[in-house]
Amino acid sequence: MESKNEIVLEIFKDISFSEKEIAFINSKFTKMHFKKGDILLTPNTYTKNQFYVFNGCLRSYFINLEGKDHTTQFAIKDWWISDYTAFFSSEKAVMNIECLQDAVVYQFSRESMNHLCEKMPKVEIFFRKKMERAFAAFQQRILEYLSLPAKERYLKFINTYPEIVKVIRNYHIASYLGITTESLSRIRKSIH
Amino acid sequence: MESKNEIVLEIFKDISFSEKEIAFINSKFTKMHFKKGDILLTPNTYTKNQFYVFNGCLRSYFINLEGKDHTTQFAIKDWWISDYTAFFSSEKAVMNIECLQDAVVYQFSRESMNHLCEKMPKVEIFFRKKMERAFAAFQQRILEYLSLPAKERYLKFINTYPEIVKVIRNYHIASYLGITTESLSRIRKSIH
Repeated sequence: MESKNEIVLEIFKDISFSEKEIAFINSKFTKMHFKKGDILLTPNTYTKNQFYVFNGCLRSYFINLEGKDHTTQFAIKDWWISDYTAFFSSEKAVMNIECLQDAVVYQFSRESMNHLCEKMPKVEIFFRKKMERAFAAFQQRILEYLSLPAKERYLKFINTYPEIVKVIRNYHIASYLGITTESLSRIRKSIH
Repeated sequence: MESKNEIVLEIFKDISFSEKEIAFINSKFTKMHFKKGDILLTPNTYTKNQFYVFNGCLRSYFINLEGKDHTTQFAIKDWWISDYTAFFSSEKAVMNIECLQDAVVYQFSRESMNHLCEKMPKVEIFFRKKMERAFAAFQQRILEYLSLPAKERYLKFINTYPEIVKVIRNYHIASYLGITTESLSRIRKSIH
């Protein structure tokens, strides 16, 4: 079992904190347990929370007007997940977040994030750099979607995220890659 | 003509600086003049710069393996532009940046950005919030691409960015919306 102190050190690795700072940060995180199939967020609701994944696997997805399911993100241990358009603005969420496995997450609100950033410049730096990496990774994913054939994107996905591939279903991979499950089956057959 | 001090105040509006801070920030920005058609960035090169647009219009775009041109971003006065995947990582650029109009931009390096953020927490906050808004806006654009018909996306684009529409060509709008110029013509005829 992790202690609350350990979770702060796990999330903000490489940053040194005093005992007092750790206690202050701890007070901003809420530990939550979810079961496979549980829903953490639904569209048309306001969200002021993001979730740090301690264990388990979650995904955010979006259903378009034609009913097509697009997976925007998976999250396993040490990842964060939210509907970030809603989280960073005053707009309603358009995404769903669901648990693909039983999960333990730490909920962290926008207000707490701003509060910590104001109080501790080292936390501000941490979140700025995290945002930069997230933005770069997201942009790269879109460019790959526009430039690589589905087979290449599948190979890249399974090589980059072997831990995620172990726990999700083909349906989820297809939804992440933007292809049908039938296309995914054909790709897998052509490889093996 | 803007003075160098004015440009600092324009970029970091709402932040108060001392004269000394303004001089320090000024030293990190390099003013550059470009002509319509000039190229600021090409793929397969390293870039450690982003550009603040003082005037003019630029676009970043990406050409996929089939030769299809995808506009990732337009930038007019008070916008920033770069290949952010390359800018925030040690990867080579995959995008082009070109001037669609004569432009005056202020070049600002990754190193200078980190330096300013380290020295001035208020600049760190400014860039964290800018990244949050950029990430949210980019995610929203992708979701719209996945969810809205081309006609809706076109109407949204011309209503949201009337200043950009004035100075770009149909070819660029189509490339931004991910449709052919023929489809764009059909959409425009169906509206007018």
